[in-house]
Amino acid sequence: MQVVLDYLRQHSSAYVEELCEYLRFPSISAQPDKSPEMRQCASWLQKRFEKAGLQAKLMETGGCPVVLAKTPRSGKARPHYLVYGHYDVQPPEPFELWKTPPFAPRLEGRNLFARGASDNKGQHLAHLYAVEAYLKTGTDLPCDLTFLIEGEEEVGSKNLAKFLKQNRAILKGEGVVISDTGMPSLKQPALTCGLRGIAAFEVKVHGPNRDLHSGIFGGTVDNPAFVLSQILATLRDKKGRIAIPGFYDDVQPLTASERKEIAKLKLDPVKYRNFLGVQELFGEKGYTLVEQRSARPTLEINGLTSGYQGAGSKTIIPAWASAKITCRLVPNQDPARIGKLVAAYLKCLCPATCRIEVEVGHAGEPYYVSPENPKARAGINALRRAFKAEPIMMREGGSIPIVNDFRKILGVDTLLLGLALPDDNAHSPNEKFNLDSFEKGMAMAVFLWQELAAIGSSSKIK
Amino acid sequence: MQVVLDYLRQHSSAYVEELCEYLRFPSISAQPDKSPEMRQCASWLQKRFEKAGLQAKLMETGGCPVVLAKTPRSGKARPHYLVYGHYDVQPPEPFELWKTPPFAPRLEGRNLFARGASDNKGQHLAHLYAVEAYLKTGTDLPCDLTFLIEGEEEVGSKNLAKFLKQNRAILKGEGVVISDTGMPSLKQPALTCGLRGIAAFEVKVHGPNRDLHSGIFGGTVDNPAFVLSQILATLRDKKGRIAIPGFYDDVQPLTASERKEIAKLKLDPVKYRNFLGVQELFGEKGYTLVEQRSARPTLEINGLTSGYQGAGSKTIIPAWASAKITCRLVPNQDPARIGKLVAAYLKCLCPATCRIEVEVGHAGEPYYVSPENPKARAGINALRRAFKAEPIMMREGGSIPIVNDFRKILGVDTLLLGLALPDDNAHSPNEKFNLDSFEKGMAMAVFLWQELAAIGSSSKIK
Repeated sequence: MQVVLDYLRQHSSAYVEELCEYLRFPSISAQPDKSPEMRQCASWLQKRFEKAGLQAKLMETGGCPVVLAKTPRSGKARPHYLVYGHYDVQPPEPFELWKTPPFAPRLEGRNLFARGASDNKGQHLAHLYAVEAYLKTGTDLPCDLTFLIEGEEEVGSKNLAKFLKQNRAILKGEGVVISDTGMPSLKQPALTCGLRGIAAFEVKVHGPNRDLHSGIFGGTVDNPAFVLSQILATLRDKKGRIAIPGFYDDVQPLTASERKEIAKLKLDPVKYRNFLGVQELFGEKGYTLVEQRSARPTLEINGLTSGYQGAGSKTIIPAWASAKITCRLVPNQDPARIGKLVAAYLKCLCPATCRIEVEVGHAGEPYYVSPENPKARAGINALRRAFKAEPIMMREGGSIPIVNDFRKILGVDTLLLGLALPDDNAHSPNEKFNLDSFEKGMAMAVFLWQELAAIGSSSKIK
Repeated sequence: MQVVLDYLRQHSSAYVEELCEYLRFPSISAQPDKSPEMRQCASWLQKRFEKAGLQAKLMETGGCPVVLAKTPRSGKARPHYLVYGHYDVQPPEPFELWKTPPFAPRLEGRNLFARGASDNKGQHLAHLYAVEAYLKTGTDLPCDLTFLIEGEEEVGSKNLAKFLKQNRAILKGEGVVISDTGMPSLKQPALTCGLRGIAAFEVKVHGPNRDLHSGIFGGTVDNPAFVLSQILATLRDKKGRIAIPGFYDDVQPLTASERKEIAKLKLDPVKYRNFLGVQELFGEKGYTLVEQRSARPTLEINGLTSGYQGAGSKTIIPAWASAKITCRLVPNQDPARIGKLVAAYLKCLCPATCRIEVEVGHAGEPYYVSPENPKARAGINALRRAFKAEPIMMREGGSIPIVNDFRKILGVDTLLLGLALPDDNAHSPNEKFNLDSFEKGMAMAVFLWQELAAIGSSSKIK
């Protein structure tokens, strides 16, 4: 085992350089014009897997290709695990808030800044390198592994379910390992046992058939920006609860024991407030900060667009106004039901003076696995050995919708062993990845296959 | 007189071609990067005045230059009038709604499409050509005229008051003539006796210090797009009244006789609705359509901006959200008082979870002149002779803030003889100017100096 860890140590600076190379691709799946760069990025990754000694190929999905890579099979009966990641990244806008360009990686101390550094390129490269270290040192890799690195996670993994169904035979196994979540700090590594689901919407309120002169027509015709504001304003009450009838119907209440477990994770509200730069926090009354952001559902406006947005003023009644909205969901909320509920409510709020369109976008179910389970324990052990600190079990507020597809289509559960730190700025300007996280993550991935091999086959996580 | 009108007729197609040349300048005063094009446009106009036989120069204002042009002075004691117009135009966005590019004029039947065609390039060129016809045919022009064509009308004429003060000596006279308003139809030319004032605002609600991942942070921190929506939603009530305390305090109620005069102007609500493409109109209860859009104050959201606006979705809590707002004001509302009132109210609506900034922008007072007045009658006569139809007296909903500066600084009133038709799409995509309006407008401008000379000097409009 030491030889594998030594190999990683010897190659650590080369690996950072390679990660930089990988981060230079603007692989933004939400922007259709980035399609060529998406493919270049996927090809780079495929070749890197081949260099590590895996058999890798690009597989078409109808959208951005999947990179699929298999470790050499020994023929022995050993557990087979899927390692999932995604090479696509969030849009980097607003560019002006980046200290340096999002696709020109910059190292500052132990932090490597670039869009996708932590979410998710750095995290799945750590797994690739751990396997390379096994293979290049001739050390027996105790599990058969298949890497599935997709290019549409940030747009809801819309082609992945079909891909899983079509390739079930080669993908099925003991479970899935994903490093795409976070940990409170380098001294508190974490296994994530719960994730929030998601439901996305785009609302467009149409008023007059063109932008109108507000002097000539103002006073006689409704303003869609006003109507949109009035609709949005009613979606939330003063106690921070979503005011859509039925929204909370299926929410499974937190048990006393889970609230106790959650309370282990300390979050100082003053530090948190200062970190976010706000005078006062705002959340659902009756829940702690950690509960609010990981175990309670939300509805957020992600964007507003209407009328004139340039310099100075333009005296118009805009023809339309739109909002992007996403809900974060918790067990046992069903995204399809929430989609219908929210869309119907939005529609019923629109007055006859305007016309509303609601587009229901991507969706993902919330996820929860029991922390009491041999594979979860194996993950905890790997974390403890790599980080030399006692790991915690936590829920996370983000969504990895495909975790549910793995359960439904492949019949397996997922081990979430995330390497992101709270200040990694995922989805924000100046995203970064910590190189200690990167290196300890590689070590964790080395120990993980030992720990999982030790418990043998067929003990499902749940 | 006939020789002047004949001259105009002979040159009508050349004048349309020249108007097209003038319309090709993207003279957008709201966009600082268009500063070179603004100056090119002003120079073109200066040269055109010189070609017509006037003495013309560009005069610096600190912003976009003023084009000032004087007719040759005979030395005889005759009334001196100022002719005002503006060579700057509204921003053309959204470009995709223009059938052909906004600065590539296109003639379709009798309509000439281009940004600025009707507002205001076509209208002041009509006055230029009328004077050229007097001068080139050697016909005695019965008034001394000074043209003042500015470049900042669409951004609130911010440097004009100072300019008027500095040049009071050469600008003062009997009054000002402006063709920058509208008429109901070619068969119903109009003198505008009232204008609404304006007060502009930009509101920005700040939340967290950067866009946040809505999964990681959602539920614990307020969303500025929500807060902005909630603030905006409260600014208007269901009866279409502005819900800002004190907003209506200084509004002078419409008298029964004026309501009767206004009622002469017919507006078919069904046709109007269809023209605007809405299912139902919306306005202040208790007032007719024409009253709502010309004699009652409004508050409109002109633009909304927040978070992600690109393709697909981005799961963030945006760092900020902003709105552009303008109020249209009526006699005797004071824009400065309304500015303070609105800004204070917006600020008091912002919760402690966010921070609000309100910028009070350009302002203009409402305007009203009595329809009973020799100069107003002279204007009416000129319209009647040119259009061969009975003119009406009307109020208009738009704002020409500098009309108040003329009154305050030069001590004179303004005759508003607008040539725009209701479907000219001022401030909207596919702005146009009707060539019958253009030609009849030139004839009106020919008759006007006769009519005004006939009444002699010093009968103020008011």
